[in-house]
Amino acid sequence: MEVIIHRVELRVPAGSTAVLVKNLYLSCDPWMHGRMSKHNVGATVPARDFVIGEVGIIFGQPFIGQLKICRSHITTVPYNSHPGMTGLTAYAGFMEVGRPKRGDSVFISAASGAVWQVAGKLAEIAGCYVVGSAGSDEKVCFLKTKFGFNDAFNYKLETDPAAALKRCLPDGINIYFDNVGGAMLDASLLHMRHGGRVAVCGMILQYNLQEPDGLRNMFCIIPKAVRVEGFNVGGYFHMYSRFEEEMVGYIMEGKVTIVRTSLRGLRVRRRL
Amino acid sequence: MEVIIHRVELRVPAGSTAVLVKNLYLSCDPWMHGRMSKHNVGATVPARDFVIGEVGIIFGQPFIGQLKICRSHITTVPYNSHPGMTGLTAYAGFMEVGRPKRGDSVFISAASGAVWQVAGKLAEIAGCYVVGSAGSDEKVCFLKTKFGFNDAFNYKLETDPAAALKRCLPDGINIYFDNVGGAMLDASLLHMRHGGRVAVCGMILQYNLQEPDGLRNMFCIIPKAVRVEGFNVGGYFHMYSRFEEEMVGYIMEGKVTIVRTSLRGLRVRRRL
Repeated sequence: MEVIIHRVELRVPAGSTAVLVKNLYLSCDPWMHGRMSKHNVGATVPARDFVIGEVGIIFGQPFIGQLKICRSHITTVPYNSHPGMTGLTAYAGFMEVGRPKRGDSVFISAASGAVWQVAGKLAEIAGCYVVGSAGSDEKVCFLKTKFGFNDAFNYKLETDPAAALKRCLPDGINIYFDNVGGAMLDASLLHMRHGGRVAVCGMILQYNLQEPDGLRNMFCIIPKAVRVEGFNVGGYFHMYSRFEEEMVGYIMEGKVTIVRTSLRGLRVRRRL
Repeated sequence: MEVIIHRVELRVPAGSTAVLVKNLYLSCDPWMHGRMSKHNVGATVPARDFVIGEVGIIFGQPFIGQLKICRSHITTVPYNSHPGMTGLTAYAGFMEVGRPKRGDSVFISAASGAVWQVAGKLAEIAGCYVVGSAGSDEKVCFLKTKFGFNDAFNYKLETDPAAALKRCLPDGINIYFDNVGGAMLDASLLHMRHGGRVAVCGMILQYNLQEPDGLRNMFCIIPKAVRVEGFNVGGYFHMYSRFEEEMVGYIMEGKVTIVRTSLRGLRVRRRL
């Protein structure tokens, strides 16, 4: 990732009730790849017609126009994660697309990321057996000790994703949350159980390829009656209130813990 | 397709209430490829515990154990097609997986086959705009004149399936019934509308390949929130009564017409 810093002009249109929003925190994740590809990031950023009704912290996505005044008992940073957009993505994907049942076997790729560490906790709360993959032993350790995963593996050390899935989930997968696409998705299709659900949230492994990997196991979805469903959080903002109440409850009860990496400044040099 | 004829031993187990079933008609379609690959077709066929409660015609799939005494006002042959297993497949796929809305754009591949000619009529009845693909100009003509399709194309004459879809469905596809897989499925994924549904019933183009074609456009399902769902009729027998009542009504009213090809004998030489 390359960070380019330069000045942009911010103006509130004359006579409007708009306010300018100052970013306190910036989430840096693979989802932004698509936004940066489609939007003219280097251009002047227009102020949108935001109105603050009470003193509070705005959170959300200015380009979508979602606003929220935070509750006073939650600090600003968690509202940008678990009870915010990333948390809602996990909640919508898990509850609405995945439709979990107690005892389901759940597999989550890129499981230590901002979204899917939340799904791991939701799966634990729902009484599922949950396995995740991540790209380092440190992340695998986090999955098993902090995020409620029953098992996890380092996909960079596994030469055969199908074998890793067979080892960790010998009876197959009821719900797969796909965030990487490619070989991992293909292996998971082979290993889905009858009536399984594949909730496709992202395909990180495909983003920088000239030509995407070809999926060769899609035929499996016919005899096994598997549903593969793409989704993005934009389609689920209507359920925010229900999600917020539930998630804030889990945080207050200690059922969901928030682990985050926070760095100061855009010039931080780090392999992101 | 190669037909091999030899004798098999049929026995009713001693003391059972089983009866032997004589096949009057045999449907010959790509779906049987999978059954013949998985089952020992050459072995002795065991009689199942079938019981006839009234005088009538049995129809169904002995290996699944479904039985039905036909109504007297429908002859035996239609009961093996539109109000039978193939019709139920189309009905379940269209109503339950496709979930049509009036005005939806529907695309059906292998559309002149036993299953999807029914779906074309159901789409017409539901007020959808329906386009089909088939493998000859004769079949394309049938789609447009007999089966209720608004438009159709001969996929063997089209070098670019994406261009054919763009021409016939310029505003995209709400529902795609996939029966062929491969390049046609890949092109359709590019052309799905937001919230679209892909009901995957078969992948005929893949059945005889050493290695299946790779699907490269699956990423499209994320921003467009597309659902790709595999299904087979075995999961929908519970809705047979509802289907039968509706379909027999359509046939009696003339909304659905039955067109069939019937050949005598297994030795008929024909490119099937």
